[in-house]
Amino acid sequence: MSAMELSKRLRCAALKDRIMSAEEAALLIRDGETVAVSGFTPSGCPKAVPLALAEQVRSGARKLRLGLFSGASTGEELDTAWAEQDMIAFRLPYMTSKALRSAVNGGSPAGVAYTDQHLGMVAQNARYGFYGPIRTAIIEAAAITEEGNLIPTTALGCSQTWIDLAEQVIVELNLRQPAELEGFHDVFRLADPPARQPIPLTDAAERIGVPYLTCPLEKIAAVVISDLPEKPRALAPEDEVSKQIARNIVSFLKNEKAAGRLSADVCPLQSGVGSVANAVLLGLKDSDFEHLRFFSEVMQDGILDLIDAGKADMASATSLSLSEAGMERLLGNLEAYRGKLILRDSEISNHAEVIRRLGVIAMNTAVEADIYGNVNSSQMNGTHVYNGIGGSGDYARNSAVSIFMTNSVAKNGKISSIVPMVTHVDHCEHDVDVLVTEQGWADLRGLSPKQRAERIIENCAHPDYRPQLRAYFEDACAAARGAQTPHLLDRCFSFHQQLKKTGSMRLDTETDSQ
Amino acid sequence: MSAMELSKRLRCAALKDRIMSAEEAALLIRDGETVAVSGFTPSGCPKAVPLALAEQVRSGARKLRLGLFSGASTGEELDTAWAEQDMIAFRLPYMTSKALRSAVNGGSPAGVAYTDQHLGMVAQNARYGFYGPIRTAIIEAAAITEEGNLIPTTALGCSQTWIDLAEQVIVELNLRQPAELEGFHDVFRLADPPARQPIPLTDAAERIGVPYLTCPLEKIAAVVISDLPEKPRALAPEDEVSKQIARNIVSFLKNEKAAGRLSADVCPLQSGVGSVANAVLLGLKDSDFEHLRFFSEVMQDGILDLIDAGKADMASATSLSLSEAGMERLLGNLEAYRGKLILRDSEISNHAEVIRRLGVIAMNTAVEADIYGNVNSSQMNGTHVYNGIGGSGDYARNSAVSIFMTNSVAKNGKISSIVPMVTHVDHCEHDVDVLVTEQGWADLRGLSPKQRAERIIENCAHPDYRPQLRAYFEDACAAARGAQTPHLLDRCFSFHQQLKKTGSMRLDTETDSQ
Repeated sequence: MSAMELSKRLRCAALKDRIMSAEEAALLIRDGETVAVSGFTPSGCPKAVPLALAEQVRSGARKLRLGLFSGASTGEELDTAWAEQDMIAFRLPYMTSKALRSAVNGGSPAGVAYTDQHLGMVAQNARYGFYGPIRTAIIEAAAITEEGNLIPTTALGCSQTWIDLAEQVIVELNLRQPAELEGFHDVFRLADPPARQPIPLTDAAERIGVPYLTCPLEKIAAVVISDLPEKPRALAPEDEVSKQIARNIVSFLKNEKAAGRLSADVCPLQSGVGSVANAVLLGLKDSDFEHLRFFSEVMQDGILDLIDAGKADMASATSLSLSEAGMERLLGNLEAYRGKLILRDSEISNHAEVIRRLGVIAMNTAVEADIYGNVNSSQMNGTHVYNGIGGSGDYARNSAVSIFMTNSVAKNGKISSIVPMVTHVDHCEHDVDVLVTEQGWADLRGLSPKQRAERIIENCAHPDYRPQLRAYFEDACAAARGAQTPHLLDRCFSFHQQLKKTGSMRLDTETDSQ
Repeated sequence: MSAMELSKRLRCAALKDRIMSAEEAALLIRDGETVAVSGFTPSGCPKAVPLALAEQVRSGARKLRLGLFSGASTGEELDTAWAEQDMIAFRLPYMTSKALRSAVNGGSPAGVAYTDQHLGMVAQNARYGFYGPIRTAIIEAAAITEEGNLIPTTALGCSQTWIDLAEQVIVELNLRQPAELEGFHDVFRLADPPARQPIPLTDAAERIGVPYLTCPLEKIAAVVISDLPEKPRALAPEDEVSKQIARNIVSFLKNEKAAGRLSADVCPLQSGVGSVANAVLLGLKDSDFEHLRFFSEVMQDGILDLIDAGKADMASATSLSLSEAGMERLLGNLEAYRGKLILRDSEISNHAEVIRRLGVIAMNTAVEADIYGNVNSSQMNGTHVYNGIGGSGDYARNSAVSIFMTNSVAKNGKISSIVPMVTHVDHCEHDVDVLVTEQGWADLRGLSPKQRAERIIENCAHPDYRPQLRAYFEDACAAARGAQTPHLLDRCFSFHQQLKKTGSMRLDTETDSQ
């Protein structure tokens, strides 16, 4: 790295004497404290200092048990490296790391208190003092301006709040992140009650803040120069089931438009994370919708496809959650996307006020849904957390139309995603307007629970599971003599119990076929 | 009624020829249509036309099956009278009528499709077209102005939206309702996306609308003069358990203030409906808090006590849900409350945007809560709806601090309100910050599920049930080897099953002791 390149990135003279190595900066972090980091999904998280810290523990030089707060999930340099050293005592609000998931679900000798929480409320709750003090913020930056302002990288998350709450800030100046990201961000400091004013955002394309994070110079304890690359998650290739889900969602959206209800070319879309969500974006590319806008949490590759194809005008999110190929495509043509992509604080991208106002059409993924429309999006078998609720609740509760999607079956048909009763409720029946599988879509709006059950079983369940779902529903109706929500408490988890016993939810399976 | 009195109430000359009897107006309603009515909780609902309609069915003169939309619950003139004639085919969003509850839970020969829904979203969903067309709105008014504007009575609910959506409007001009209520209301017409602007409300005491409902004169099909009294619900007398819950809530609020977090004398309070909620209000009267403000759904008698005692400055709600004594007190001294009580549209009183902005401290009632903090507020035994979710979700999800309260036991100790797993989830673990019973309070913020379980069992469960709750939790932890949310799917409803078998949730009960 040339001195000239560094001086273009580190433009604040007063901070030059705070440059130190990742190892030195890691020593500024004390055992027992809470560390809060930039980024959202693996994007935009610090890398060098977390890795140095994990190495200090691995080598036996230090013993550390820390709190770790982030915008959402972090990458292998943080959640994975720290979980492997059993360094995480308290973690919020979200994760996708296999190592951390295993630790949270009982694999950590020392224990991890993992609190998953609506992502849009994390910064506010931290400011309100609900999570205790934060001592250190580690913020990845693409540049530091003359005034000492920080240019964020590929995600914003809760960075501004972490800076405001932390006693000390460690900046990872990542030269591998493109300096050209300057100008893509819109950082808005939300005042707290009783001084809070309306968030002045009335259109997904508006800018309401500044393109940098602000931090008092005296708070910056270290500047670490890094060139560690992001390690984006690969997207699973589109399969036929994902494509059919996408076609069903497009079919529903067209139906809404034809009925004169809120339409996808009038209201912004929110699209969840993952391969199915990305397939939906690609499905929209082949639809008749024009001038699509996104007010979402993350931007996946499909957003770039839609913009490139002239089908989407712009997208607002808190994170660029692109695949490696997607990131290359963005960086290779960054100026073409300027003004079309806005990266906001996760507090704003996921804010009830803005989502409700804009009339967002929300599309989120379910792990399982029950016949009455309750959705589990986090806990496998009701006990083992997969990732967490994430931002799905921010959107589902406040959107104009809340769509949940899932494959009708998983594990080669051994698991039905439609069950009599979900083992964990993240989204109650009142927050699920439409349920979509590759089998079809069920519009649940205005329906009573029993009406919903009939529609979900017929439209969304896999044909292999419809008979046993119908049998449950009919028996429950008979036993409860037509109660509002017929259930048999001794049979409502029979699908899950059968799975445990035989390896399949098929009630006609007698032996373990796993 | 003198002609002079009537002319003071019906000031619009153009409407004088539309006066007709309740029976004549009832004939304007056709079989199969949806009727939408003013009011919220029994307050402010029309009475004469609904009773006339029920009588036309009872006498055999007409056969009617109708949709019925309201702000929240209605009184005996509507839900009860109509359910008794099995006239309700489709009902939303809330009820408290015993007759309707019985019909919904299987007692209606023809069936009632009852959809309970977050009360703050009902008007919006209706405008979005999710519930189908509304043919008739019946609006209770205290007066009709020179221009034909309607002065609402004791509640607003969704009246303005019903007027805007209906083909015809029947006005019940109720002379028994005090004309002096003019000026207490603040009606705000919320534009829909993409034209929606920020709701300009930054303080519970602000007015943002007009004090009347507007309706094109040509839409008014009938003016029915009525003098039927409101039939407020009696409040159960305060018992020692309610008082102890109230003391625990005040203790929690004091603790928040001492910790420097959002305080009840800075942020407005929301208080649910019922005797326990009213006891909390009375508990606040004896606290050190000053200048309390309420941003709530209903005003109960306790609000008047707080204002009278100089402890509360004002209250904003959508309904005056006062007892008969409370209503007399209000009407006997109406001018003293002018400017201190604001009645808003339920869409505004329960709006995510405003609740989040103001930092409302929410206090709602649970039917049961589980050891992980999930709350059931609507379905008994998971199957039989009691009232519905009401507005609790509007506040719980969007408040600064979400408190749920319940007696630790019901039915003389035969039912524990703290159970291993709730049989129905209205409020997921992420929306419950604090759980309060007469035993104590559990602050769940930032805790992992297992930490929550320990705190809820020790602080909130009744001592009689702690051993069997601990046993469940320990066995679940052992079986799930420390999963994030330990559960035993074959035992999680054991309390409910024991209740069904023996009449008590006590697992040591062998025989039916009911």
